[in-house]
Amino acid sequence: MSARLDATASGVYAIAATPFRPDGALDWDSLDRLTDFYLACGATGLTILGIMGEAPKLEPEESLEVARRVIARAGAVPVVVGVSAPGFSAMRRLARGVMDLGAAGVMIAPTPQLRTDDSIAGYFAGAVEAVGEDVPWVLQDYPLTLTVQMTPGLIRRIVEAHPSCVMLKHEDWPGLEKISALRRFQSEGSMRALSILTGNGALFLDFEMERGADGAMTGYAFPDMLADVVKLSGAGRRDEAHDLFDAHLPLIRYEQQQGVGLAVRKYVLMKRGAIASDAQRKPGSALTPAARAEVDYLLARLARHDPRAAF
Amino acid sequence: MSARLDATASGVYAIAATPFRPDGALDWDSLDRLTDFYLACGATGLTILGIMGEAPKLEPEESLEVARRVIARAGAVPVVVGVSAPGFSAMRRLARGVMDLGAAGVMIAPTPQLRTDDSIAGYFAGAVEAVGEDVPWVLQDYPLTLTVQMTPGLIRRIVEAHPSCVMLKHEDWPGLEKISALRRFQSEGSMRALSILTGNGALFLDFEMERGADGAMTGYAFPDMLADVVKLSGAGRRDEAHDLFDAHLPLIRYEQQQGVGLAVRKYVLMKRGAIASDAQRKPGSALTPAARAEVDYLLARLARHDPRAAF
Amino acid sequence: MSARLDATASGVYAIAATPFRPDGALDWDSLDRLTDFYLACGATGLTILGIMGEAPKLEPEESLEVARRVIARAGAVPVVVGVSAPGFSAMRRLARGVMDLGAAGVMIAPTPQLRTDDSIAGYFAGAVEAVGEDVPWVLQDYPLTLTVQMTPGLIRRIVEAHPSCVMLKHEDWPGLEKISALRRFQSEGSMRALSILTGNGALFLDFEMERGADGAMTGYAFPDMLADVVKLSGAGRRDEAHDLFDAHLPLIRYEQQQGVGLAVRKYVLMKRGAIASDAQRKPGSALTPAARAEVDYLLARLARHDPRAAF
Amino acid sequence: MSARLDATASGVYAIAATPFRPDGALDWDSLDRLTDFYLACGATGLTILGIMGEAPKLEPEESLEVARRVIARAGAVPVVVGVSAPGFSAMRRLARGVMDLGAAGVMIAPTPQLRTDDSIAGYFAGAVEAVGEDVPWVLQDYPLTLTVQMTPGLIRRIVEAHPSCVMLKHEDWPGLEKISALRRFQSEGSMRALSILTGNGALFLDFEMERGADGAMTGYAFPDMLADVVKLSGAGRRDEAHDLFDAHLPLIRYEQQQGVGLAVRKYVLMKRGAIASDAQRKPGSALTPAARAEVDYLLARLARHDPRAAF
Repeated sequence: MSARLDATASGVYAIAATPFRPDGALDWDSLDRLTDFYLACGATGLTILGIMGEAPKLEPEESLEVARRVIARAGAVPVVVGVSAPGFSAMRRLARGVMDLGAAGVMIAPTPQLRTDDSIAGYFAGAVEAVGEDVPWVLQDYPLTLTVQMTPGLIRRIVEAHPSCVMLKHEDWPGLEKISALRRFQSEGSMRALSILTGNGALFLDFEMERGADGAMTGYAFPDMLADVVKLSGAGRRDEAHDLFDAHLPLIRYEQQQGVGLAVRKYVLMKRGAIASDAQRKPGSALTPAARAEVDYLLARLARHDPRAAF
Repeated sequence: MSARLDATASGVYAIAATPFRPDGALDWDSLDRLTDFYLACGATGLTILGIMGEAPKLEPEESLEVARRVIARAGAVPVVVGVSAPGFSAMRRLARGVMDLGAAGVMIAPTPQLRTDDSIAGYFAGAVEAVGEDVPWVLQDYPLTLTVQMTPGLIRRIVEAHPSCVMLKHEDWPGLEKISALRRFQSEGSMRALSILTGNGALFLDFEMERGADGAMTGYAFPDMLADVVKLSGAGRRDEAHDLFDAHLPLIRYEQQQGVGLAVRKYVLMKRGAIASDAQRKPGSALTPAARAEVDYLLARLARHDPRAAF
Repeated sequence: MSARLDATASGVYAIAATPFRPDGALDWDSLDRLTDFYLACGATGLTILGIMGEAPKLEPEESLEVARRVIARAGAVPVVVGVSAPGFSAMRRLARGVMDLGAAGVMIAPTPQLRTDDSIAGYFAGAVEAVGEDVPWVLQDYPLTLTVQMTPGLIRRIVEAHPSCVMLKHEDWPGLEKISALRRFQSEGSMRALSILTGNGALFLDFEMERGADGAMTGYAFPDMLADVVKLSGAGRRDEAHDLFDAHLPLIRYEQQQGVGLAVRKYVLMKRGAIASDAQRKPGSALTPAARAEVDYLLARLARHDPRAAF
Repeated sequence: MSARLDATASGVYAIAATPFRPDGALDWDSLDRLTDFYLACGATGLTILGIMGEAPKLEPEESLEVARRVIARAGAVPVVVGVSAPGFSAMRRLARGVMDLGAAGVMIAPTPQLRTDDSIAGYFAGAVEAVGEDVPWVLQDYPLTLTVQMTPGLIRRIVEAHPSCVMLKHEDWPGLEKISALRRFQSEGSMRALSILTGNGALFLDFEMERGADGAMTGYAFPDMLADVVKLSGAGRRDEAHDLFDAHLPLIRYEQQQGVGLAVRKYVLMKRGAIASDAQRKPGSALTPAARAEVDYLLARLARHDPRAAF
């Protein structure tokens, strides 16, 4: 069990995949191995049961068991649990359940049909009431998939209304100006401090760090590279950060494709030995032989710059 | 327990509301009372755990318990259970569970992000594999809420591919030509027989019957009126069917508003004594005093033509 | 030429259809006849080149010629011209052009891709700069077709930022509470006076008037009935207003169907002698024989209550 | 004037920007200069008045004049003109007009609201009837912006129905499997030959070529690099193609951001001397100082590998 999440969080929170066996059953051994893998990669936190964790396909008791197991194994490393649900009742149950198990906080995405600033703000007010004001939470801002768009001003409004909102999972696209705007709010004193970790498969991590992000919360299959980039960027070693990032960019781009991205990610995680199978629970996607060959080619090219990609 | 659903189904399948207490707990007494109410209204079937039944807000064990209770109470009247879910695993579990409890069949809606005929057809193929080919099912076609659009040709393709698809819940808008097109397919022999029950709060039931629908599957708070219209229309008493329908149309239209419609429906069901409270589980909608007064006024006007609206 | 539009506007502004010949050419004779028809029906204003006026299918010079002709024929009756366009340059040119021709004002809809309060407000700021602050304009709020949602608070923000915004074309669905909220803003002094005319084919005109609307701006093929309902409601003759409205509701509902609605409207206008042909410029929709027969049946039923529907 | 477009087209068709002066007027001198620039970069064709050419913001007579000028200057290099429009009448007028001016063909995108295979196929049938069956045309498949999704099977259906459809502007995302599927249709004989040029800012050009594309049709500010990659890939020099591509990928990715991408593109084109100003006609986007500095940094890094990026 770890400390509770707060606005000082930084580094790399790995969006954890959920390992399945080819028959669709949860692969508990791989889950342990994957947890260890993320920690060995230098993850400062883990985020489980997110969209890319195939959370909506889990049964409620499976969700709790996944959380129990990862939290126990992660030890002092904070675990954030996605609790987005169509109803506040299920959200509350999962949130209270995982906090009891030692989660550091929860992550909440707006439901896809929300429009207008007021209805989005109202939704999060209801969610906070449901999970309890004592539960630290991450605001997920992911318009490409959720179709819900939040301006910096709306994010500030939500942050100011809810002290328990301690982090933004920044996943807008394009999103660089949004980070700058939020940091400007902080520096001018109109918004309190907020941890900002960025998503989108890390496609813009190089510049996101320079705009003021505290790190990454995403699932790219080389979290160790993400950790390095975050460190290099934080140390002001700009060119080195970009050099490393650029070496990975061809694969990052390939993995960030909507729909097939998770198949790429699980395939690479499997090749890295972190999980036993790249199977997804149905309905899922799979790589064609041509796509696998392309990923292999990208890995071979990457290995020239980063030995972690050599198999 | 009833017979299994097949393509001869007709009449009124009431889309059952799910009664909650003001604190959000399920109201089991009202559920029994509501079941009795629907049967007394002449419903030839019940559909539970649909979108308007607030199904996504229920916990899995609540869903099963609601199904168990309604199926037991409905006796020989067939109960269809909505099993739409983000993952096929949960869909399968709920479907097998309710069929074991004696459900007549299940109802499946496409997931909202589906586009292209192929991906929609593929989704239903996966769903049929998940629930099992032995389970009769209702294809839900509801573009206004789900944003998934299916042409008559695509519906035929799905129907022909899956013998277990025995009914269409027709809820396109506009949708009259779709009914005609599907019946033309049948008469020309390119599609087997299919039960077509119509939704959309009954806003077009008058003409839907004349285009070839077998009845209604919707939740308007006067299912007894729906049953009358279906019978009158079936008996060729066209003007009488329209006269009765038109008397209800001002309220039908009011109840059919997206978002607030369920609040209207539950309010009228409460006034009719079918449920104890019009509360919705959060997040839900509620009627303002002005809206309640408008519904009361509509009911008073309706009562001049239909004594069932007099309280 | 008429006086400029201001916030005192009320009554019925008919959304004018644009008459075409079967070959797709503009039918100028019918345009004159239709203008006369609307005036004879008691329209207090006309709105041309709106979405239901097939404006996007017109060439720029056709748009100007339509405006010139209707404005000249309407005399003292104010004509509002839809000037929505993908670019501000075209919007400005059309707006300045029609104001020079004597239009009373223009109507502006947000472009469909807009999300977030800020971007919507920003869009209207750009539009006002483009057409000029001296041009009175109508804010069109039509989420069902445009997918842009505006809260009462956002409408107030736009109204307060732009003195030239004098009217709201209210077309949200559901929308009754929105009217009440806006009138509350006015009565509490947080928003200046604004004319509110309602759309949506008049499907809720009965209650919209009671919530505080100043009238209707819609294209239902019986604008004379709309004028009567507005007058009866304004005179406090509530039951009479509803009686007349309810008699038309079956047809209103039929005409308000998305996509085929315009075909119904033009068909009825043709039957009423207002236009020579119900043709639409391509791509358009057309009524099947079955649909025509249904409209004829609805008209025959309506004629029992309203002789204007007897042909 | 050039030969008419046919299915053998290959290489790089530059999606031409439209140069404006800071006051929003068309910059004709820059248009000439930009045309020369594209030709000098090795473009085998030009595509004007596309989405990224700000076509919807042009007046009809401006569109024609832009086409006239570019076609004249491009000489034997084929010019494709985007003719997408809300109505078939405007589409026809522009298409016939530019073909008379010597355009090689036109490009048609589906209107954004289209859903279902049948309605999409029907739309293109109407468009072909409008522009005339003698006009060669490019089918634009761009779901990210247009929200219209076409399967390989639907594309085949359209191609087979219309001999005048000679090219696909492939811009689906992800889209690699789509290219493979279409080439499979050709090799198995179920679809005739079709030129496939890819878009999406070239983000996947490296693999698109390997999947069977004939080249690129996109607007990345280094069309000379695109031409090199197409050539290298065509010559089987795979690693060299990827090496060059990867050097550009950080900037390609930056330019491919929705919304701000055009501002990046015009800024780089300005730096390369191809246009005088990076202004967009309103409503448009602009780069912040921070974004400009990021682009400058990316260019400086790129210049180490590709001297064309050194200024």
